[in-house]
Amino acid sequence: MSTGREPTGVAEAVAACSIARALEVIGDPWTILVLRDAFRGIRRFDELRRDLGIAKPVLADRLKRLVDAGVLRREQYNEHPPRYEYRLTPKGRDLSPALVALMRWGDAYLSADGPPVVLVHEPCGHELEQSFVCHTCDQEFTPTDIASRPGPGSQRRSPPPHPGGNRVRSRRRHA
Amino acid sequence: MSTGREPTGVAEAVAACSIARALEVIGDPWTILVLRDAFRGIRRFDELRRDLGIAKPVLADRLKRLVDAGVLRREQYNEHPPRYEYRLTPKGRDLSPALVALMRWGDAYLSADGPPVVLVHEPCGHELEQSFVCHTCDQEFTPTDIASRPGPGSQRRSPPPHPGGNRVRSRRRHA
Repeated sequence: MSTGREPTGVAEAVAACSIARALEVIGDPWTILVLRDAFRGIRRFDELRRDLGIAKPVLADRLKRLVDAGVLRREQYNEHPPRYEYRLTPKGRDLSPALVALMRWGDAYLSADGPPVVLVHEPCGHELEQSFVCHTCDQEFTPTDIASRPGPGSQRRSPPPHPGGNRVRSRRRHA
Repeated sequence: MSTGREPTGVAEAVAACSIARALEVIGDPWTILVLRDAFRGIRRFDELRRDLGIAKPVLADRLKRLVDAGVLRREQYNEHPPRYEYRLTPKGRDLSPALVALMRWGDAYLSADGPPVVLVHEPCGHELEQSFVCHTCDQEFTPTDIASRPGPGSQRRSPPPHPGGNRVRSRRRHA
C-alpha cells in the first residue's frame, strides 16, 4: 500500500478523489442548507435569509460561491429596484442523488425522533428507495457487487478508490 | 416562506436537516479520504498514513471521530506490540450510496481529465447506474417524480426540504 510519498497535505489527496472534490463544493453546512432550500423552491435572497436564519454576508458569500461553481444561476425578476433569484442549474439538479443519499443516511442513523421528512414516489405516495442498477443485466444490486477500474483521469499511483463493498476486487479484464 | 425567526446561526438549521447532520459526520476532507480508503480495504494506521500523506495527529483525530460516530470500529490484530485496524461498521458501509453519488457527480462535473475511477457491476463489468426506485410500482424514476411529506421527526415549522425535483409538490393525502 505504500506509495513512498512524503506527507504533502490534503490538497494532493483531494485532487485524486471525486468525492472530496464534490464536498469542496457542497460540504459546508450553510451551503448545503442553501441548496436544500433551492430544491424546495426558495429562491430569493430575503426568503432564504428568513428561512435559514443566516446573516446577510454569509448568505451572499454562499450564493456567490454556488453561482461561481455553476450550481445555481442568478436571474433578475424585478427591474426597479433590481432583484434577483437563484435557480438550480442542470449541474445543481444533478446533485439530487447525492443529497437524497446523504439525507437517507442521516435519517437512518442520526435522527433519534425519526426522519424530519419522508421522500416518496409522487404518483403512488410510497417511500422511495435508492438503488444501484445495471441496465445491461437489467438488475438492481447491492454495494458488495460493485467493482472498480481506473478511469481516464486516473493517476495510477495506487489502487482505485472503491466506495462500494468493503474490500477491493480487481477486474483484470479492465485494470 | 417567512418563519418570523431571528437569525440564530447554523446550529438550529442543521438540527432540522438530515443532510447537514450527515455532512457534520463525513464532510471534512480528511474524513472522506479516510473513509474512501476504508472502502478500499486500507485499514491500518501506517497504511492509511502512507497512502494519504496525512500527519499522524490528524489521522488519529479523524479515526477517533469516525469510531466515536460508529462509522468505523477498532479491532486489535496484534498483541505484542498492540496494533489495531479500523473496519467499517454496518453504519459505515451504509454510506456507500452517498459516497457513490458524490463521486459520480464529481466525475461528471469536476473531473476535466475524465473520472479517476469507474465503478462497475462486478458480474458483468458494465458501468453502474444509481437510480430512484419505487418497489410498489416496480419502476425506476427521475428526481422530478419525487415528492415529500413531513416525517415523525418534523418540527412542522416550514415546508419540508425536498432534494428531488426543483419545485415543491404537496401531497395533501400525506401533508
